[in-house]
Amino acid sequence: MMNTFSVTRTVRFSAAHRLHNPDWSDERNRAVYGRCANPGGHGHNYALRVTVTGPLDPESGMVLNVTDLRDVLRAEVVERMDHRNLNTDVPYLAGAVTTMENIAMRIAEQLAEPLKRMGVRLSRLELAESDRNSVTLEFKDS
Amino acid sequence: MMNTFSVTRTVRFSAAHRLHNPDWSDERNRAVYGRCANPGGHGHNYALRVTVTGPLDPESGMVLNVTDLRDVLRAEVVERMDHRNLNTDVPYLAGAVTTMENIAMRIAEQLAEPLKRMGVRLSRLELAESDRNSVTLEFKDS
Amino acid sequence: MMNTFSVTRTVRFSAAHRLHNPDWSDERNRAVYGRCANPGGHGHNYALRVTVTGPLDPESGMVLNVTDLRDVLRAEVVERMDHRNLNTDVPYLAGAVTTMENIAMRIAEQLAEPLKRMGVRLSRLELAESDRNSVTLEFKDS
Amino acid sequence: MMNTFSVTRTVRFSAAHRLHNPDWSDERNRAVYGRCANPGGHGHNYALRVTVTGPLDPESGMVLNVTDLRDVLRAEVVERMDHRNLNTDVPYLAGAVTTMENIAMRIAEQLAEPLKRMGVRLSRLELAESDRNSVTLEFKDS
Amino acid sequence: MMNTFSVTRTVRFSAAHRLHNPDWSDERNRAVYGRCANPGGHGHNYALRVTVTGPLDPESGMVLNVTDLRDVLRAEVVERMDHRNLNTDVPYLAGAVTTMENIAMRIAEQLAEPLKRMGVRLSRLELAESDRNSVTLEFKDS
Amino acid sequence: MMNTFSVTRTVRFSAAHRLHNPDWSDERNRAVYGRCANPGGHGHNYALRVTVTGPLDPESGMVLNVTDLRDVLRAEVVERMDHRNLNTDVPYLAGAVTTMENIAMRIAEQLAEPLKRMGVRLSRLELAESDRNSVTLEFKDS
Repeated sequence: MMNTFSVTRTVRFSAAHRLHNPDWSDERNRAVYGRCANPGGHGHNYALRVTVTGPLDPESGMVLNVTDLRDVLRAEVVERMDHRNLNTDVPYLAGAVTTMENIAMRIAEQLAEPLKRMGVRLSRLELAESDRNSVTLEFKDS
Repeated sequence: MMNTFSVTRTVRFSAAHRLHNPDWSDERNRAVYGRCANPGGHGHNYALRVTVTGPLDPESGMVLNVTDLRDVLRAEVVERMDHRNLNTDVPYLAGAVTTMENIAMRIAEQLAEPLKRMGVRLSRLELAESDRNSVTLEFKDS
Repeated sequence: MMNTFSVTRTVRFSAAHRLHNPDWSDERNRAVYGRCANPGGHGHNYALRVTVTGPLDPESGMVLNVTDLRDVLRAEVVERMDHRNLNTDVPYLAGAVTTMENIAMRIAEQLAEPLKRMGVRLSRLELAESDRNSVTLEFKDS
Repeated sequence: MMNTFSVTRTVRFSAAHRLHNPDWSDERNRAVYGRCANPGGHGHNYALRVTVTGPLDPESGMVLNVTDLRDVLRAEVVERMDHRNLNTDVPYLAGAVTTMENIAMRIAEQLAEPLKRMGVRLSRLELAESDRNSVTLEFKDS
Repeated sequence: MMNTFSVTRTVRFSAAHRLHNPDWSDERNRAVYGRCANPGGHGHNYALRVTVTGPLDPESGMVLNVTDLRDVLRAEVVERMDHRNLNTDVPYLAGAVTTMENIAMRIAEQLAEPLKRMGVRLSRLELAESDRNSVTLEFKDS
Repeated sequence: MMNTFSVTRTVRFSAAHRLHNPDWSDERNRAVYGRCANPGGHGHNYALRVTVTGPLDPESGMVLNVTDLRDVLRAEVVERMDHRNLNTDVPYLAGAVTTMENIAMRIAEQLAEPLKRMGVRLSRLELAESDRNSVTLEFKDS
């Protein structure tokens, strides 16, 4: 029986965004993104669930201290996105249409280094813009 | 034993907003509203819980059909606010700083007439911008 | 500063029902109750929140033991309604159209005696058929 | 670092059902299904979470528009099951005991074609009849 | 139409406690408090919902800044109770059996002064030890 | 299209615990575990989600009856941990620092036999101490 240990932390942030591809006409933006293309934008209470995987330290009985994971997520995500506009205020989202998929991918890239330094591997990242809609990135062991 | 019958319907909408009083300096806006004054704005998944009170119709066994209440809330609130910017896109919020209190009060004014036509009284209106923050308006019987 | 102490317990039950007034034509049932009048019925996970009010016992530090309140709700509500059909299987709902309002009122009548014997007063009863729809009965102090 | 992109949409519907295998005696039905075999049936607020997997369109920044996924789920599931009796009112459940497993499998079969036409693969389907009970179907990449 | 404006903030804390009246025998403690009297104690994720009522400031559009309310609740409740033992670690609970009722009452006393200094009135305090059990204190206007 | 059928049941229990490695100094315990090392302990409402995988019985339409899974979880987990102190009151946790990881692993070991006797395989076990923190054990098919 082979098993894998993971630890998951959820953080939340409230942000505005608008789906808009500057290379497209307004008509095409409206056709592809619907109401999400409204010029004034809209917003969400986002929930980000980050899962890290690693060996269990037999002495501490932990994969990592979930408080340390929380601190990384606060520094890299909440401090930068909460009460901000994702289209204009977050340097590491620059140039991306702020879809759930793109935001999730950029967050994953941003977290890779700090998590590696903590000795764990980012295995799953779920970003939900509501109780009904979410995207999930799963990272297989290489 | 005197009792009161109420029916509550919850609707949700996702919107952007920014707290900004145009009569104030940027410094004062920042001092009073904190991060909520960020120029790019932010956003929320709002939950609106509207409670109406009235006599029980003994034949139908209902105060009102909750589907009718839903239809009013969709027409007067969700259709106008969902995937919009509350500072710029909602005519009946014009001129108000978009605090929870002001949004709730304007929604209550907007709902008064349609609810009266349905034979019920608006008795309570709760607007939550997250699971942690909400405002409540309670209307006493005159 | 006058204050009131209340204790609230939530119980859940899963039941089928159908809104149908036998004194009405099928057309009128459909017009008033919409999809809720479908002949095959439908169902819900109901949540019942019962609030009782009373003096604080200074010795025990409780209004009542919430476990005792739970036991009454299980005996009078859950045991009788869970995994049942509210139109046919619950004697104390007989003759009532199974609207949220009527179910709530009949439950309140059923609970009045047992709660009085426990030395508390039923002050509020909320019955929700989903996260979006609920009815509330409030009982004022006589 | 190999990764997989998924999008999940949750829809809800309220339905009645009863667990009953017509090839069995009443005794055996009761022994296997317990209270779920009660003749009058019972019901639930079901939550269906459907996950689709596919390549990220670099231009739109989406795997698919979650609104399109919602529309498929409304047409194929909610419109057919909400406020219905799953034992008698849903053609594509005919002949199946309405366990969570069977409902989930039939929904998966019903969704396969429309999702393929949208260019995505159904990778996971979770059907919950309450906050405590659910079944999950996972579809491995062929 | 007379109305009342309220603002509600929810905070959470995780704590251990045990119900035990030192003036009683072990038998009586067990008879009154049941499993809650287990000598090793148990614990909960508590949710505290504090509601304050006051006039709407027409200039700011707020009753108070909910961030200020949060800061008071963090200082007076979360900092003192989170990851603590309520029977031994919280000076202002000393001498009280740590029932939900007594905890709620002591918190209300603790909050009265700081809230008065902020120009609002504590009108309601709800303490929940789970999704199923809660107590509510309501303070009428004098 | 290869698929896997799983059934998930969630149970909850309220317990006290303290993170403390008796082989370490108080300073090291505090450095590694932070507030979780407070001598008086703290507590949580834990949620345990257990997923079992197995073939679908074509006659019953079930992998297993979720009520049987519930009974095992009540007997092996809830009866032993609810309203208890995890550091002192649960024999099968003896000798383990009561981190989420260790509790989850010991529960998995405790469930292996009873689940095997029911003809299903434990495939996933998630233990959450709050809505924000959880650990997950995934058991690959051998």
